[in-house]
Amino acid sequence: MKIAIIGGTGPQGAGLALRFAKAGADVVIGSRDGQRAAAKAEELQQKLAAGSGKISGCDNLQATASVEQMVILAVPYSAHDATLNELKPLLAGKILVDIVVPLAEGNPKAVAMPAEGSATEAAQALLGDDIPVVGALHNVSAVTLNKLEQKINCDILVCGNDLQAKNSVMEMLSLLDVTSYNAGLADSARCIEAITPILIRLNISKAVPFSHAGICIQPPAH
Amino acid sequence: MKIAIIGGTGPQGAGLALRFAKAGADVVIGSRDGQRAAAKAEELQQKLAAGSGKISGCDNLQATASVEQMVILAVPYSAHDATLNELKPLLAGKILVDIVVPLAEGNPKAVAMPAEGSATEAAQALLGDDIPVVGALHNVSAVTLNKLEQKINCDILVCGNDLQAKNSVMEMLSLLDVTSYNAGLADSARCIEAITPILIRLNISKAVPFSHAGICIQPPAH
Repeated sequence: MKIAIIGGTGPQGAGLALRFAKAGADVVIGSRDGQRAAAKAEELQQKLAAGSGKISGCDNLQATASVEQMVILAVPYSAHDATLNELKPLLAGKILVDIVVPLAEGNPKAVAMPAEGSATEAAQALLGDDIPVVGALHNVSAVTLNKLEQKINCDILVCGNDLQAKNSVMEMLSLLDVTSYNAGLADSARCIEAITPILIRLNISKAVPFSHAGICIQPPAH
Repeated sequence: MKIAIIGGTGPQGAGLALRFAKAGADVVIGSRDGQRAAAKAEELQQKLAAGSGKISGCDNLQATASVEQMVILAVPYSAHDATLNELKPLLAGKILVDIVVPLAEGNPKAVAMPAEGSATEAAQALLGDDIPVVGALHNVSAVTLNKLEQKINCDILVCGNDLQAKNSVMEMLSLLDVTSYNAGLADSARCIEAITPILIRLNISKAVPFSHAGICIQPPAH
Protein backbone atom coordinates (compact mmCIF):
# COMPACT_ATOMS: atom_id res chain seq x y z
CA MET A 1 0.00 0.00 0.00
CA LYS A 2 1.17 3.52 -0.84
CA ILE A 3 -0.48 6.53 0.74
CA ALA A 4 -0.23 10.17 -0.41
CA ILE A 5 -0.28 12.86 2.27
CA ILE A 6 -0.94 16.30 0.79
CA GLY A 7 0.49 18.94 3.10
CA GLY A 8 2.71 16.22 4.46
CA THR A 9 5.45 18.57 5.66
CA GLY A 10 3.21 20.00 8.40
CA PRO A 11 3.17 18.44 11.88
CA GLN A 12 -0.05 16.44 11.37
CA GLY A 13 0.97 15.16 7.94
CA ALA A 14 4.52 14.34 9.00
CA GLY A 15 3.30 12.49 12.08
CA LEU A 16 0.93 10.42 9.96
CA ALA A 17 3.70 9.69 7.46
CA LEU A 18 5.88 8.38 10.28
CA ARG A 19 3.11 6.23 11.73
CA PHE A 20 2.06 4.70 8.42
CA ALA A 21 5.65 4.05 7.33
CA LYS A 22 6.47 2.55 10.71
CA ALA A 23 3.62 0.11 10.08
CA GLY A 24 5.16 -0.85 6.74
CA ALA A 25 3.20 1.28 4.26
CA ASP A 26 4.98 3.41 1.67
CA VAL A 27 4.13 7.09 1.97
CA VAL A 28 4.59 9.97 -0.43
CA ILE A 29 4.34 13.38 1.16
CA GLY A 30 3.31 16.30 -0.99
CA SER A 31 3.96 19.98 -0.58
CA ARG A 32 3.55 23.03 -2.80
CA ASP A 33 7.36 22.93 -2.87
CA GLY A 34 8.47 19.50 -4.08
CA GLN A 35 12.06 19.95 -2.90
CA ARG A 36 10.90 20.83 0.58
CA ALA A 37 8.78 17.65 0.62
CA ALA A 38 11.73 15.54 -0.54
CA ALA A 39 13.96 16.97 2.20
CA LYS A 40 11.27 16.37 4.83
CA ALA A 41 10.78 12.81 3.58
CA GLU A 42 14.47 12.11 4.03
CA GLU A 43 14.42 13.61 7.53
CA LEU A 44 11.42 11.47 8.50
CA GLN A 45 12.87 8.29 7.02
CA GLN A 46 15.91 8.66 9.27
CA LYS A 47 13.68 8.44 12.33
CA LEU A 48 12.48 4.99 11.32
CA ALA A 49 14.09 1.60 11.67
CA ALA A 50 15.21 -0.39 8.65
CA GLY A 51 12.33 -2.44 7.28
CA SER A 52 9.86 0.43 7.63
CA GLY A 53 7.91 1.65 4.62
CA LYS A 54 9.59 4.13 2.29
CA ILE A 55 8.79 7.83 2.68
CA SER A 56 9.32 9.94 -0.44
CA GLY A 57 8.45 13.56 -1.18
CA CYS A 58 7.41 15.62 -4.20
CA ASP A 59 4.91 18.31 -5.11
CA ASN A 60 1.22 17.84 -4.32
CA LEU A 61 0.23 16.99 -7.90
CA GLN A 62 2.95 14.36 -8.32
CA ALA A 63 2.16 12.89 -4.92
CA THR A 64 -1.51 12.54 -5.83
CA ALA A 65 -0.68 11.04 -9.23
CA SER A 66 1.68 8.49 -7.71
CA VAL A 67 -0.84 6.57 -5.58
CA GLU A 68 -3.62 4.24 -6.66
CA GLN A 69 -6.20 4.93 -3.99
CA MET A 70 -5.51 6.84 -0.78
CA VAL A 71 -4.93 10.59 -0.77
CA ILE A 72 -4.92 12.23 2.67
CA LEU A 73 -5.49 15.99 2.70
CA ALA A 74 -3.58 17.57 5.61
CA VAL A 75 -3.17 21.19 4.55
CA PRO A 76 -4.13 24.17 6.73
CA TYR A 77 -7.79 25.06 6.30
CA SER A 78 -6.89 28.28 4.48
CA ALA A 79 -5.48 26.13 1.64
CA HIS A 80 -8.29 23.50 1.71
CA ASP A 81 -10.41 24.51 -1.28
CA ALA A 82 -7.56 25.78 -3.48
CA THR A 83 -5.62 22.56 -3.02
CA LEU A 84 -8.64 20.42 -3.84
CA ASN A 85 -9.35 22.44 -6.99
CA GLU A 86 -5.78 21.82 -8.08
CA LEU A 87 -5.88 18.08 -7.31
CA LYS A 88 -9.39 17.33 -8.58
CA PRO A 89 -8.39 16.12 -12.10
CA LEU A 90 -5.98 13.62 -10.51
CA LEU A 91 -8.40 12.24 -7.95
CA ALA A 92 -10.67 10.21 -10.24
CA GLY A 93 -10.88 6.63 -9.00
CA LYS A 94 -9.26 7.52 -5.68
CA ILE A 95 -10.47 8.31 -2.16
CA LEU A 96 -9.89 11.73 -0.62
CA VAL A 97 -9.37 11.45 3.13
CA ASP A 98 -10.05 14.89 4.56
CA ILE A 99 -8.48 15.49 7.98
CA VAL A 100 -8.70 19.29 7.85
CA VAL A 101 -10.37 21.16 10.73
CA PRO A 102 -11.75 24.61 9.87
CA LEU A 103 -10.37 26.36 12.95
CA ALA A 104 -11.43 29.98 13.27
CA GLU A 105 -8.72 32.37 12.11
CA GLY A 106 -6.72 33.48 15.13
CA ASN A 107 -8.77 31.33 17.52
CA PRO A 108 -7.94 27.63 17.69
CA LYS A 109 -10.59 27.20 20.38
CA ALA A 110 -13.40 27.63 17.83
CA VAL A 111 -14.38 26.45 14.37
CA ALA A 112 -15.59 28.64 11.54
CA MET A 113 -17.52 26.14 9.46
CA PRO A 114 -17.93 26.69 5.72
CA ALA A 115 -21.38 27.21 4.23
CA GLU A 116 -21.55 23.51 3.33
CA GLY A 117 -21.53 22.66 7.06
CA SER A 118 -18.01 21.23 7.44
CA ALA A 119 -14.73 20.87 5.56
CA THR A 120 -15.63 17.30 4.64
CA GLU A 121 -18.93 18.35 3.11
CA ALA A 122 -17.24 21.25 1.33
CA ALA A 123 -14.69 18.86 -0.14
CA GLN A 124 -17.42 16.47 -1.32
CA ALA A 125 -19.34 19.33 -2.94
CA LEU A 126 -16.18 20.61 -4.63
CA LEU A 127 -15.04 17.20 -5.92
CA GLY A 128 -18.48 15.99 -7.01
CA ASP A 129 -20.17 12.69 -6.25
CA ASP A 130 -17.79 10.52 -8.26
CA ILE A 131 -14.83 11.08 -5.94
CA PRO A 132 -15.65 9.79 -2.45
CA VAL A 133 -14.58 12.01 0.43
CA VAL A 134 -14.04 10.45 3.84
CA GLY A 135 -13.54 12.60 6.93
CA ALA A 136 -11.18 11.12 9.53
CA LEU A 137 -8.25 11.75 11.88
CA HIS A 138 -9.41 15.23 12.89
CA ASN A 139 -9.02 14.75 16.61
CA VAL A 140 -5.56 13.17 16.94
CA SER A 141 -2.90 15.45 18.40
CA ALA A 142 -0.03 16.14 15.99
CA VAL A 143 2.34 16.04 18.94
CA THR A 144 1.17 12.57 19.85
CA LEU A 145 1.46 11.39 16.24
CA ASN A 146 5.10 12.44 16.20
CA LYS A 147 5.94 10.63 19.45
CA LEU A 148 6.27 7.20 17.94
CA GLU A 149 6.85 5.53 21.29
CA GLN A 150 3.34 6.57 22.44
CA LYS A 151 0.17 4.73 21.53
CA ILE A 152 -2.41 7.06 19.97
CA ASN A 153 -4.83 8.09 22.76
CA CYS A 154 -7.73 8.81 20.46
CA ASP A 155 -10.38 6.82 18.66
CA ILE A 156 -10.94 7.80 15.04
CA LEU A 157 -14.43 8.90 14.04
CA VAL A 158 -14.82 8.29 10.32
CA CYS A 159 -17.61 9.81 8.24
CA GLY A 160 -18.66 10.13 4.64
CA ASN A 161 -21.44 9.29 2.22
CA ASP A 162 -19.74 6.27 0.59
CA LEU A 163 -19.70 3.19 2.82
CA GLN A 164 -17.19 1.26 0.72
CA ALA A 165 -14.75 4.18 0.84
CA LYS A 166 -15.21 4.46 4.61
CA ASN A 167 -14.46 0.76 5.00
CA SER A 168 -11.28 1.12 2.92
CA VAL A 169 -10.17 4.07 5.05
CA MET A 170 -10.87 2.18 8.28
CA GLU A 171 -8.79 -0.70 6.96
CA MET A 172 -5.92 1.73 6.28
CA LEU A 173 -6.34 3.23 9.76
CA SER A 174 -5.87 -0.17 11.34
CA LEU A 175 -2.17 0.31 10.48
CA LEU A 176 -2.08 3.03 13.16
CA ASP A 177 -3.11 0.68 15.99
CA VAL A 178 -6.21 2.76 16.69
CA THR A 179 -9.89 1.96 16.96
CA SER A 180 -11.91 3.62 14.26
CA TYR A 181 -15.67 3.91 14.04
CA ASN A 182 -18.10 4.58 11.23
CA ALA A 183 -19.64 7.77 12.61
CA GLY A 184 -22.16 8.28 9.84
CA LEU A 185 -22.64 10.39 6.75
CA ALA A 186 -20.55 13.37 5.75
CA ASP A 187 -22.68 15.74 7.82
CA SER A 188 -21.36 14.06 10.98
CA ALA A 189 -18.19 16.03 10.21
CA ARG A 190 -19.98 19.12 11.60
CA CYS A 191 -19.62 17.45 14.97
CA ILE A 192 -16.38 15.54 14.49
CA GLU A 193 -14.34 18.47 13.14
CA ALA A 194 -15.69 20.64 15.97
CA ILE A 195 -14.42 18.24 18.64
CA THR A 196 -10.87 19.39 17.87
CA PRO A 197 -11.20 22.99 19.18
CA ILE A 198 -12.84 21.59 22.32
CA LEU A 199 -9.78 19.36 22.84
CA ILE A 200 -7.48 22.31 22.11
CA ARG A 201 -9.39 24.35 24.71
CA LEU A 202 -8.91 21.58 27.28
CA ASN A 203 -5.24 21.33 26.36
CA ILE A 204 -4.67 25.03 27.05
CA SER A 205 -6.92 25.05 30.09
CA LYS A 206 -5.34 24.92 33.50
CA ALA A 207 -8.35 22.89 34.64
CA VAL A 208 -7.06 19.75 32.91
CA PRO A 209 -3.94 18.00 34.22
CA PHE A 210 -2.65 16.96 30.80
CA SER A 211 -2.16 18.22 27.28
CA HIS A 212 -2.72 16.52 23.90
CA ALA A 213 -6.05 15.07 24.97
CA GLY A 214 -7.84 12.61 22.75
CA ILE A 215 -11.41 11.38 22.74
CA CYS A 216 -12.55 7.76 23.05
CA ILE A 217 -15.78 5.85 22.76
CA GLN A 218 -16.39 4.11 26.08
CA PRO A 219 -18.26 0.85 26.61
CA PRO A 220 -20.55 0.60 29.64
CA ALA A 221 -18.78 0.03 32.95
CA HIS A 222 -19.50 -3.23 34.69
CA MET B 1 -29.25 21.30 47.47
CA LYS B 2 -32.53 20.83 45.61
CA ILE B 3 -32.60 20.28 41.88
CA ALA B 4 -35.61 20.61 39.56
CA ILE B 5 -35.79 18.27 36.58
CA ILE B 6 -38.33 19.43 34.02
CA GLY B 7 -39.52 16.47 31.99
CA GLY B 8 -38.39 14.34 34.89
CA THR B 9 -40.74 11.47 34.15
CA GLY B 10 -38.86 10.54 30.94
CA PRO B 11 -35.99 8.03 31.05
CA GLN B 12 -33.19 10.64 31.03
CA GLY B 13 -34.85 12.82 33.67
CA ALA B 14 -35.79 9.90 35.88
CA GLY B 15 -32.28 8.45 35.69
CA LEU B 16 -30.79 11.79 36.69
CA ALA B 17 -33.29 12.11 39.55
CA LEU B 18 -32.21 8.71 40.85
CA ARG B 19 -28.51 9.53 40.58
CA PHE B 20 -28.76 12.94 42.25
CA ALA B 21 -31.00 11.65 45.04
CA LYS B 22 -28.71 8.67 45.59
CA ALA B 23 -25.91 11.21 46.13
CA GLY B 24 -28.01 12.97 48.78
CA ALA B 25 -29.55 15.86 46.84
CA ASP B 26 -33.27 16.55 46.96
CA VAL B 27 -34.90 16.42 43.55
CA VAL B 28 -38.24 17.68 42.32
CA ILE B 29 -39.34 16.22 39.03
CA GLY B 30 -41.71 18.20 36.88
CA SER B 31 -44.15 17.07 34.24
CA ARG B 32 -47.01 18.70 32.36
CA ASP B 33 -49.14 16.44 34.53
CA GLY B 34 -48.31 17.07 38.18
CA GLN B 35 -50.02 13.89 39.39
CA ARG B 36 -48.00 11.78 36.98
CA ALA B 37 -44.82 13.42 38.29
CA ALA B 38 -45.82 12.74 41.90
CA ALA B 39 -46.49 9.07 41.13
CA LYS B 40 -43.16 8.76 39.30
CA ALA B 41 -41.35 10.42 42.19
CA GLU B 42 -42.79 7.87 44.59
CA GLU B 43 -41.80 5.00 42.29
CA LEU B 44 -38.23 6.34 42.01
CA GLN B 45 -37.91 6.95 45.74
CA GLN B 46 -38.64 3.29 46.39
CA LYS B 47 -35.57 2.30 44.37
CA LEU B 48 -33.31 4.21 46.75
CA ALA B 49 -31.94 3.33 50.15
CA ALA B 50 -32.98 5.20 53.27
CA GLY B 51 -30.81 8.29 53.72
CA SER B 52 -31.00 9.22 50.05
CA GLY B 53 -32.27 12.62 48.98
CA LYS B 54 -36.01 13.13 48.71
CA ILE B 55 -37.65 12.91 45.28
CA SER B 56 -40.92 14.78 44.91
CA GLY B 57 -43.06 15.48 41.86
CA CYS B 58 -45.37 18.23 40.66
CA ASP B 59 -46.12 20.19 37.49
CA ASN B 60 -43.29 21.91 35.61
CA LEU B 61 -44.14 25.39 36.88
CA GLN B 62 -44.30 24.35 40.53
CA ALA B 63 -41.09 22.35 40.16
CA THR B 64 -39.27 25.37 38.75
CA ALA B 65 -40.66 27.67 41.43
CA SER B 66 -39.62 25.32 44.22
CA VAL B 67 -35.84 25.43 43.67
CA GLU B 68 -33.41 28.23 44.31
CA GLN B 69 -30.91 27.68 41.53
CA MET B 70 -30.74 24.54 39.40
CA VAL B 71 -33.38 23.76 36.79
CA ILE B 72 -32.55 20.89 34.43
CA LEU B 73 -34.51 20.79 31.18
CA ALA B 74 -35.01 17.17 30.07
CA VAL B 75 -38.05 17.33 27.81
CA PRO B 76 -38.17 15.90 24.27
CA TYR B 77 -36.86 18.41 21.74
CA SER B 78 -40.33 18.91 20.30
CA ALA B 79 -41.35 20.49 23.64
CA HIS B 80 -38.10 22.47 24.14
CA ASP B 81 -39.13 25.98 23.17
CA ALA B 82 -42.72 25.81 24.41
CA THR B 83 -41.60 24.59 27.83
CA LEU B 84 -39.00 27.34 28.12
CA ASN B 85 -41.54 30.00 27.17
CA GLU B 86 -43.79 28.73 29.93
CA LEU B 87 -41.01 28.60 32.55
CA LYS B 88 -39.24 31.84 31.64
CA PRO B 89 -40.96 34.08 34.24
CA LEU B 90 -39.95 31.66 36.98
CA LEU B 91 -36.30 31.30 35.92
CA ALA B 92 -35.01 34.73 37.00
CA GLY B 93 -32.00 34.28 39.28
CA LYS B 94 -31.69 30.58 38.41
CA ILE B 95 -29.57 28.51 36.00
CA LEU B 96 -31.18 26.56 33.17
CA VAL B 97 -29.26 23.36 32.47
CA ASP B 98 -30.23 22.29 28.97
CA ILE B 99 -29.65 18.59 28.28
CA VAL B 100 -31.93 18.40 25.24
CA VAL B 101 -30.58 16.97 21.96
CA PRO B 102 -32.38 18.11 18.81
CA LEU B 103 -32.58 14.68 17.21
CA ALA B 104 -34.03 14.68 13.71
CA GLU B 105 -37.67 13.65 13.67
CA GLY B 106 -37.87 9.94 12.92
CA ASN B 107 -34.07 9.57 12.74
CA PRO B 108 -32.18 9.34 16.04
CA LYS B 109 -28.93 8.93 14.08
CA ALA B 110 -28.98 12.60 13.03
CA VAL B 111 -29.57 16.03 14.51
CA ALA B 112 -31.77 18.75 13.06
CA MET B 113 -30.25 21.84 14.64
CA PRO B 114 -32.40 24.94 15.17
CA ALA B 115 -31.53 28.17 13.36
CA GLU B 116 -29.64 29.39 16.44
CA GLY B 117 -27.13 26.55 15.93
CA SER B 118 -28.03 24.26 18.83
CA ALA B 119 -30.70 23.73 21.46
CA THR B 120 -28.49 25.40 24.08
CA GLU B 121 -28.08 28.51 21.97
CA ALA B 122 -31.80 28.53 21.16
CA ALA B 123 -32.57 28.37 24.89
CA GLN B 124 -30.19 31.23 25.63
CA ALA B 125 -31.74 33.37 22.89
CA LEU B 126 -35.23 32.59 24.14
CA LEU B 127 -34.49 33.27 27.82
CA GLY B 128 -32.37 36.38 27.26
CA ASP B 129 -28.96 37.19 28.66
CA ASP B 130 -30.06 37.54 32.29
CA ILE B 131 -30.83 33.83 32.70
CA PRO B 132 -27.68 31.77 32.14
CA VAL B 133 -28.11 28.61 30.08
CA VAL B 134 -25.59 25.79 30.50
CA GLY B 135 -25.54 22.84 28.11
CA ALA B 136 -24.57 19.53 29.73
CA LEU B 137 -25.35 15.83 30.07
CA HIS B 138 -26.29 15.37 26.41
CA ASN B 139 -24.20 12.27 25.82
CA VAL B 140 -25.03 10.07 28.82
CA SER B 141 -27.16 7.03 28.03
CA ALA B 142 -30.51 7.06 29.81
CA VAL B 143 -30.22 3.30 30.22
CA THR B 144 -26.90 3.70 32.02
CA LEU B 145 -28.31 6.48 34.23
CA ASN B 146 -31.05 4.14 35.39
CA LYS B 147 -28.65 1.29 36.21
CA LEU B 148 -27.54 2.64 39.55
CA GLU B 149 -25.02 -0.13 40.10
CA GLN B 150 -23.03 1.03 37.04
CA LYS B 151 -20.58 3.90 37.05
CA ILE B 152 -21.41 6.44 34.33
CA ASN B 153 -19.14 5.65 31.35
CA CYS B 154 -19.17 9.16 29.93
CA ASP B 155 -17.41 12.42 30.62
CA ILE B 156 -19.66 15.47 30.69
CA LEU B 157 -18.88 18.28 28.27
CA VAL B 158 -20.30 21.49 29.72
CA CYS B 159 -20.78 24.65 27.67
CA GLY B 160 -22.32 28.08 28.01
CA ASN B 161 -21.53 31.76 27.93
CA ASP B 162 -21.53 32.32 31.72
CA LEU B 163 -18.43 30.92 33.43
CA GLN B 164 -19.81 31.20 36.96
CA ALA B 165 -22.94 29.29 35.96
CA LYS B 166 -20.82 26.60 34.29
CA ASN B 167 -18.75 26.24 37.45
CA SER B 168 -21.91 25.85 39.55
CA VAL B 169 -23.21 23.18 37.19
CA MET B 170 -19.89 21.33 37.25
CA GLU B 171 -20.03 21.37 41.05
CA MET B 172 -23.53 19.87 40.92
CA LEU B 173 -22.34 17.25 38.41
CA SER B 174 -19.63 16.11 40.81
CA LEU B 175 -22.51 14.44 42.71
CA LEU B 176 -22.79 12.00 39.81
CA ASP B 177 -19.22 10.69 40.18
CA VAL B 178 -18.35 11.83 36.66
CA THR B 179 -15.61 13.98 35.22
CA SER B 180 -16.94 17.15 33.68
CA TYR B 181 -15.09 19.62 31.49
CA ASN B 182 -15.65 23.23 30.54
CA ALA B 183 -15.99 22.73 26.79
CA GLY B 184 -16.37 26.38 25.90
CA LEU B 185 -19.07 28.86 24.98
CA ALA B 186 -22.65 28.02 24.10
CA ASP B 187 -21.77 27.46 20.46
CA SER B 188 -19.77 24.37 21.47
CA ALA B 189 -23.21 22.79 21.89
CA ARG B 190 -23.35 22.47 18.09
CA CYS B 191 -20.70 19.81 18.50
CA ILE B 192 -21.64 18.38 21.90
CA GLU B 193 -25.34 17.86 21.15
CA ALA B 194 -24.38 16.24 17.83
CA ILE B 195 -22.17 13.64 19.54
CA THR B 196 -25.33 11.93 20.81
CA PRO B 197 -26.65 10.71 17.42
CA ILE B 198 -23.14 9.43 16.63
CA LEU B 199 -23.25 7.39 19.85
CA ILE B 200 -26.78 6.21 19.03
CA ARG B 201 -25.53 5.13 15.58
CA LEU B 202 -22.71 3.15 17.19
CA ASN B 203 -25.13 1.62 19.68
CA ILE B 204 -27.37 0.29 16.92
CA SER B 205 -24.46 -0.67 14.68
CA LYS B 206 -23.40 -4.27 14.54
CA ALA B 207 -19.81 -3.03 14.15
CA VAL B 208 -19.56 -2.16 17.85
CA PRO B 209 -19.56 -4.91 20.46
CA PHE B 210 -21.52 -2.95 23.05
CA SER B 211 -24.47 -0.64 23.45
CA HIS B 212 -24.93 2.51 25.57
CA ALA B 213 -21.56 3.90 24.55
CA GLY B 214 -20.22 7.02 26.19
CA ILE B 215 -17.43 9.38 25.22
CA CYS B 216 -14.37 10.23 27.31
CA ILE B 217 -11.50 12.67 27.15
CA GLN B 218 -8.29 10.66 27.12
CA PRO B 219 -4.92 11.76 28.49
CA PRO B 220 -1.83 10.86 26.46
CA ALA B 221 -0.70 7.26 26.82
CA HIS B 222 2.68 6.75 28.46
